[in-house]
Parts: sequence; C-alpha cells; structure tokens
Amino acid sequence: MLELGAVHEPIATLLAGKLEEVAVIFERQLASDLSAVNELCTHIESYRGKMLRPTLVLLSGLAAAGEPCDGAVLTNKHLTVAAVAEMIHMATLVHDDVLDEAEMRRRGATVNILWGNEAAVMLGDYLISNAFHLCSTIGDPSINLLLGQVTNTLCEGELVQLRHRDNYGLDEATYLQIIRRKTATLIGVCCRLGGALANAGEVQTQALERFGLALGTAFQLQDDLLDLTGDAEVVGKSLGRDLDKGKLTLPVIHHLASVDSVERGRALRLIEQRDAAGLQRRLMESGAVDRASEAAAELIAEAKRELPRLPAGPARDMMRHIADAVIDRSY
Amino acid sequence: MLELGAVHEPIATLLAGKLEEVAVIFERQLASDLSAVNELCTHIESYRGKMLRPTLVLLSGLAAAGEPCDGAVLTNKHLTVAAVAEMIHMATLVHDDVLDEAEMRRRGATVNILWGNEAAVMLGDYLISNAFHLCSTIGDPSINLLLGQVTNTLCEGELVQLRHRDNYGLDEATYLQIIRRKTATLIGVCCRLGGALANAGEVQTQALERFGLALGTAFQLQDDLLDLTGDAEVVGKSLGRDLDKGKLTLPVIHHLASVDSVERGRALRLIEQRDAAGLQRRLMESGAVDRASEAAAELIAEAKRELPRLPAGPARDMMRHIADAVIDRSY
Repeated sequence: MLELGAVHEPIATLLAGKLEEVAVIFERQLASDLSAVNELCTHIESYRGKMLRPTLVLLSGLAAAGEPCDGAVLTNKHLTVAAVAEMIHMATLVHDDVLDEAEMRRRGATVNILWGNEAAVMLGDYLISNAFHLCSTIGDPSINLLLGQVTNTLCEGELVQLRHRDNYGLDEATYLQIIRRKTATLIGVCCRLGGALANAGEVQTQALERFGLALGTAFQLQDDLLDLTGDAEVVGKSLGRDLDKGKLTLPVIHHLASVDSVERGRALRLIEQRDAAGLQRRLMESGAVDRASEAAAELIAEAKRELPRLPAGPARDMMRHIADAVIDRSY
Repeated sequence: MLELGAVHEPIATLLAGKLEEVAVIFERQLASDLSAVNELCTHIESYRGKMLRPTLVLLSGLAAAGEPCDGAVLTNKHLTVAAVAEMIHMATLVHDDVLDEAEMRRRGATVNILWGNEAAVMLGDYLISNAFHLCSTIGDPSINLLLGQVTNTLCEGELVQLRHRDNYGLDEATYLQIIRRKTATLIGVCCRLGGALANAGEVQTQALERFGLALGTAFQLQDDLLDLTGDAEVVGKSLGRDLDKGKLTLPVIHHLASVDSVERGRALRLIEQRDAAGLQRRLMESGAVDRASEAAAELIAEAKRELPRLPAGPARDMMRHIADAVIDRSY
C-alpha cells in the first residue's frame, strides 16, 4: 500500500480493514479446483503492492459521502469493483512482464521467468477472465460495459505503444495518449465508480474521474522516471526496461526535442546502444528529467484542483495526500 | 464455414445470411479510432474459418423453435452472442499460436510471426476485452456470468495442459478433462444459449448443451488427430505442433497404454526426438489412431442421441449433419 502517514490514522485503519476484505474477494475468485491453477495464483498474490486502484475506489466512495467518514457508505459493490480493478491491473502486469521480458517484480522472479512465457500468457488470460466474471456477479450490466470499455482502451494503449517501439521521433502528444489509455483510464474509472456507487451526483463523479485521470497519468510518468533514474533495490523490479525495449518516455522525448543536432545524435547513439547510465547522465544535465518531474507535479496539481467539488472531510484530505505520494515516491 | 451440403439448401442460405450479420457485428466491435489497432484486426478477419460456434448458436435457436424454420426466432441477442463466441475463440487462437510458436494459420502467417509475440499477446487481450464488452451490450448479466465462467474454465484447461507438457504418463481421463475445459465447454454453452434465447425450456437447453459438449470434445479429438496425421496443405495450419510442444494426445496415450514395454520405449524415444513421421507410422500400425477415431465417432453418436429431444425440422437435421461433418473433415 502507499504510505498513508500517521496523521491520517483513523481513515487509514478503516481503509486497511476494507482492503483486507477486497483481498479476500480477490483470492476467493481465483481459487480453482485445479492445483496447477492455484499454484500460479498464489505466486500472483505476492505481486499485490500499492493497491492504488482498490484504495481509490474505496476512498472515492468515502469522499463523495463526506462526514461522518465511518465506512457505512461502502457497499459490497465497492469491494467487488475494487477487487476487479486490481485483477485487471494484475493481468496487465503479468502480460507486460512477458512483453518486456522482465525478470523481477515486487522483489521476486516474474511468472514468465519462473514458469515460462506460455504460463504467463495463460495466467494473464485467467486473470482477465476472472475479472470479468467477478464483475458480472454484481449484476449491473452498466458496470460491465464501463469496465469493458476501459480494458478495450487499455489494450489499445499497449498496441499503440508497441507500434512505436524504436520510433525515435515519438512526440509528447502521442506518448501522453499512450499512457492515458494504458494507465490513467482505469484509475479514472476506479474513482468514478467509487463515487457513483456511493450515489454521488454527476458533478462529483465527473470531478472524481478527472482526478483519477490526472493522477493516473502522473503515476505513469513517475513510473517511467523511476525506470530511468530509480534504484532497482528500492523499486523492487527490473529497471531500464523502457530503454531495453525501445520505448521512449517523456524525459527522452523532451531531451531529443530541445537539444542541438550534435547532442541529439549523441543521445540517439546512447539509446541505440541501450546505455542506460550514459543516457541518464545526459537527461539529468539537460534538465529533461526535471522537466518530466515538473509535468508530473503539474498533473498532480490539476488532480487536486478537482477536490473542492467534494465534501470536506478526512477522505478528501487523504485523496490529496495520496495525490502527493504518487510523485513523492522512490518505489 | 463447415460444408453444409446441397440437401440442406434453404436453411444453409438462411444461416449464411445470418452469419454475414454476425460478421458485421464482429468487425464493428473491433473497429478502433487507432490505425495500429485496425491493421492487426484486419489480419484477424482472415482467421475466420468454419464459424462453428456462431453457426451452433444460431442453429440451436432455430432447432429449439422447430417449424416454420424461417429465422423469425433469431433475435439480435443471438447474433451478438454468436459474435462474442467467435471473438473468444479467436482470442484463444491468437494466444495458442504464441504458446505453440505456430507459424501458419488459415493458410497465412500467424500474428506472432508477422508482428512478434508481443503484438500477439496484446491482440489476444484486445479480443478478449472486446468479447466481454460486446457481451455487456446485451444488458443481461446472466449471459456475462455464464460466458465469464466459460472463459475461466477455458483458461484452466489451457493451464492444466501446459502443466502436463512432456508428461509422458498423461492418462486418458486427464486428457479428456483438458479438452472438455479448453474446447467443449464453450461449444456446449453456445448451443445452450442459442436455445435459451429462443425461449427453449430446461429439458431442451440441457439437451442442447450436452449435444455441444459431446460434439466439442469430438471436434478437439479430430483436431488432435489431424495435427498428427493430417496434410498441412489441406488443413491450412502448422501441424505436428502437439508433438513439438510435448503435448500428448489420445492416439499417443492409447498407444503407450496398450503396447509392451519394448514398443513403449521405442515410442517414447520417437516422442523425445519429435519424430512425427516415425511416431505416426507406429500409431497407425498399433491401431491407436483408429481407436481415437472411434472415440470421436462414439462422442458424435452420443451428441446425436440428444437431438430427438428437439422438435423435428430442417434445423435439427442440419445439427445432425454438422455433427457428422465434425469428424468427416480433413481440414
């Protein structure tokens, strides 16, 4: 889970209890009568890290309801949607690790490394299928429809990103479109649904969705920055993967767009040689890393500007805190 | 499409027209505002071959309604479920080709060969996601729930099959459980839903589901036989893949279980050496191929025994014809 801070203790305790319930729903859904399936799913549970998406579903419900912030507004539907969102996210992690040939995730070996790409492909499919099945148990076709649209968009984002591998001319607008589709849309809908299931009106659910979209985009920017400049020991997963896979991220795009042709040539050579340390040094020096950090900070500010549309209270305060934590993290 | 035969002409024409409508729904669902996505989906359309699953959805509706067999009983829900079933099937083909490292499908190169494994993984995900999204447009949570269960089961079948790669002690019961889960369950539910959407009663929908389960199991047995003994030119896809991937199928299981230890040792060596021609010869000689063919024929007889529970008419006759065609095919 994200570091929630002692100052938020009562609501942090409330959330932690609800997240435990979400984890139970998650595990019960994946339980199979086949041991071969259960072994793989047990490994997956170690992937559960920040629980950002479930946290935002629950917190959006609490924030939309305002005071008293005692959790009475959170229904079983909230818990189920939270588990579905985490399951969709897990599926993308498992398939991303196949795409990236990643070896480490949450300080452990990835499924593709332990059991091979084939098992990772099928396990990701099993997670997607179970996410939709679990979503269907809610019995509300509009939620199925909304989450189906989200996963369509998510896959489109991944396909466009693949298409732009080794495209050294990738521009900022296309990059932002990719990360909005592959990361931010799901987070935006988590916030929207959390509010809608707490009977929030349209103004509030729209504000929540915009909050999630901006926060989700900043989250991915920060992930991309950590992939470039982070410490693998602290982050807990393989780094430098974007460069290895020819994926240009914002600092690189900024750098290539702002430097002279000599430096551009030098940077392109470092990219072609997959020289992460060399590239990182130049991006630091040119200020491209700082500019990408500033872009993430601006998105977080944008997210926080949505919050006054929600009733004041500890849940709204916590959302502000989480927004800051998204870019103040080194893991 | 399966060869339907001139004798069934009026209903074959009716079905062909409805399958065109299913194809339109299928294509419209996958259309994206992104060209990178559309290019991949256009390739996928060349995969549409027998249209067995959509055919069975429609035909089960027609058969449950009896005479007059004019198609009036077929609703938009039938067409949508038919497109969803084909999309789920396509997703499994695309991911299977990644798992099997297959190079050819429907006489063309596979997605994994043309655009790489990564694009194939993501395209399969896009198909699964769109299948669920399309299913949600029907607005009936019970259909989402049923198809979600089917895809859970399908993935479990694939995971168990993976687990048993290179398990030369695989027994017949486990093999049958795998193919029921990965192939027959979806076909059974296609038949069940086709009938249910035509307001068939429980006796008929259960008969239809059992028909589909037995037919689907026979279909996979025949596929496995063709992989072993077929002509790649006629079948139109890479063959010998089961052997290459260490997947034991029924003829091999029968052979290993029935011969003496000397011949067993010889056969195991041929399997280890991936010697398809040598293995095929021994399985022909020992009668193991014939025994597997007989098992498929027995399943088709079992399927046909369900048909008297449905009203007489051309749709029921056509179901009998299709059941026979499933094992009388060389492609």
